[in-house]
Amino acid sequence: MTILERHDTGAVAQLIMNAPERLNALSDEMLAALQAEFDSLRGDRTIRAVILSGAGKAFCAGHDLKQMTAGRQAPDGGKAYFKDLFDRCARMMMSVQSLPQPVIAQVHGIATAAGCQLVATCDMAVAAEGTRFGVNGVNIGLFCSTPMVALSRNIPRKQAFEMLTTGRFIEAERAAELGLVNHVVPVERLADETRALAETVAGKLGAAVRIGKEAFYRQQMLPLDQAYAYTGDVMVENMLYRDTEEGIAAFIEKRPPDWSQ
Amino acid sequence: MTILERHDTGAVAQLIMNAPERLNALSDEMLAALQAEFDSLRGDRTIRAVILSGAGKAFCAGHDLKQMTAGRQAPDGGKAYFKDLFDRCARMMMSVQSLPQPVIAQVHGIATAAGCQLVATCDMAVAAEGTRFGVNGVNIGLFCSTPMVALSRNIPRKQAFEMLTTGRFIEAERAAELGLVNHVVPVERLADETRALAETVAGKLGAAVRIGKEAFYRQQMLPLDQAYAYTGDVMVENMLYRDTEEGIAAFIEKRPPDWSQ
Amino acid sequence: MTILERHDTGAVAQLIMNAPERLNALSDEMLAALQAEFDSLRGDRTIRAVILSGAGKAFCAGHDLKQMTAGRQAPDGGKAYFKDLFDRCARMMMSVQSLPQPVIAQVHGIATAAGCQLVATCDMAVAAEGTRFGVNGVNIGLFCSTPMVALSRNIPRKQAFEMLTTGRFIEAERAAELGLVNHVVPVERLADETRALAETVAGKLGAAVRIGKEAFYRQQMLPLDQAYAYTGDVMVENMLYRDTEEGIAAFIEKRPPDWSQ
Repeated sequence: MTILERHDTGAVAQLIMNAPERLNALSDEMLAALQAEFDSLRGDRTIRAVILSGAGKAFCAGHDLKQMTAGRQAPDGGKAYFKDLFDRCARMMMSVQSLPQPVIAQVHGIATAAGCQLVATCDMAVAAEGTRFGVNGVNIGLFCSTPMVALSRNIPRKQAFEMLTTGRFIEAERAAELGLVNHVVPVERLADETRALAETVAGKLGAAVRIGKEAFYRQQMLPLDQAYAYTGDVMVENMLYRDTEEGIAAFIEKRPPDWSQ
Repeated sequence: MTILERHDTGAVAQLIMNAPERLNALSDEMLAALQAEFDSLRGDRTIRAVILSGAGKAFCAGHDLKQMTAGRQAPDGGKAYFKDLFDRCARMMMSVQSLPQPVIAQVHGIATAAGCQLVATCDMAVAAEGTRFGVNGVNIGLFCSTPMVALSRNIPRKQAFEMLTTGRFIEAERAAELGLVNHVVPVERLADETRALAETVAGKLGAAVRIGKEAFYRQQMLPLDQAYAYTGDVMVENMLYRDTEEGIAAFIEKRPPDWSQ
Repeated sequence: MTILERHDTGAVAQLIMNAPERLNALSDEMLAALQAEFDSLRGDRTIRAVILSGAGKAFCAGHDLKQMTAGRQAPDGGKAYFKDLFDRCARMMMSVQSLPQPVIAQVHGIATAAGCQLVATCDMAVAAEGTRFGVNGVNIGLFCSTPMVALSRNIPRKQAFEMLTTGRFIEAERAAELGLVNHVVPVERLADETRALAETVAGKLGAAVRIGKEAFYRQQMLPLDQAYAYTGDVMVENMLYRDTEEGIAAFIEKRPPDWSQ
């Protein structure tokens, strides 16, 4: 049994966090396994969409508090270990965003603290009815400062502040209203609906989605004129792809495109 | 017949994109006509609000794919033409935002790709029930990279990402929920409701709206302290307008203001 | 009778703006009183949450227009006074955000112009049913340029633009949908619900909430990698608090934490 399963079906890779007895906590081992798979997927042109899900009762309950507590035994009280841990966790989260392929979180049960951060970090998310989301570290005296980086880039300010300072959970439907997830579906349809979304994305021209996803996050931090200068260049490059020429021609001629991918 | 009609009524200018056979595509000619009108409106103090609408079945279906395809015949495969095209398009979009007068999109039928960008770019938008919005270039292998600059500054991140990578359309009501449009009305009331909104804005003190619209976009990219330093200066300038002095005096004395405009 | 009452109950301080005959306008005196209390609260470790409310019919109706009009009598037509006034107002608003303790607006009646800005500036807000919000300075020729700094950091772009250029009010329920307030409750439950929220926040570890609130606003303006580098350091510092060690240990051992606060 591995801590992170991977199953490829066609152009879709599914990663399943598999430490159900710890609610798929982001332990050192889980972080390393996720990082390794994202590093491996980065250059894999046969995969055009990624699903991330969790085995057992929950998607992910955040950091592994027992492992973190054990880290306190070091002479520095754990300081160096904690710094390294949050660095590795942030690196993994940024790898999701910098991955060329869209990553869809398939969420059920609970997604708390760094688990909620993982949902916020994924490009899209589908949640089962009944799923609960929280950045509840404040309840034990540990403010969810790194999770809020991702959360506050997904939902409005006051609603993020409330979740962070009260530690309260929100339901899946509320998460969808706020922008944290894209769709809420009955739990028995969660896998199928998530896969259908992944297949839809994987059916597009991979090169166009790759260049588009990169531009999506990069342009958002730029002033308007710079954002247009940059994305204008992206559009020119995209227009010159042979498959894009074929896609446009096929559209004008009302026939399916004959793409090389 | 002109490709862009303009009808002025009082202080409201209405621009009507008029290439219904091409779903008001943003061809070279349409872009030039829009740019010329915005350049002309910029210094026109008699106009205090602008409505932008489309003739025929749709608001705007984005770039003119046939014209773009013809551009591929150049020795460089169209590269120079495409770069110039996206530059001109971005310049037109930024002209909407930098125009002193508020611009309201009056949207019906469909608004797709750069047509959806145009809705996102306008300061406000009113849509007819049944209008569909999409950034669907990905369906033909051309990711809507420039449209996403405007779209991602209107709606939450995950919902923008989904529209861009699935190419799926959203309905007018959903567009209103997400923030892409201000109001959804029955199609038979679209023109009247849009005009009523334009008249409301045009009835305000033009100088105040001008200085306010400029500050609206400029302060949003600034850190909080700089945003307050800048808008504080704007408020001082605004307070010193003779018409603002009259407006405040009239309010205190419970009478209508006697403005010079 | 003081212009700003303060009542402390346990770890919660309630500030009550008390100039009901002027709808709690942000006069020179009110701004000075608010600034003095926030300066005093800043270092007060016994207070862990703050409620801000208004006496009488309204939360706050913005600047004191009669006082501003009187300021026009100066030889410079009021220019220096206005500049100083907006500087003091911005400083007070930024003090709310930089205050270590979360500040919750308890809103009823109306919150207009700089009063709406005050709601937008508070970390959270609870509103009574029937409360109306507006940035309506444009109606008298004074665009709400400083209020929009706070408003546009709370609600989507087009909806903010409409409020600013039409001067129209929105109802409490709409304010909640847009993100301007957290909760809407019947007016007879407003005080209790706001206090319950404040007590919940005050019940958390004060040091964690303090470091978290500071990080909340600071990380939001940073690029993703810098935001993670910064909040990673915040998490390390937070992990090393003795009370956080106790909080985590208590959680693992399924018992209540024994905090020093």
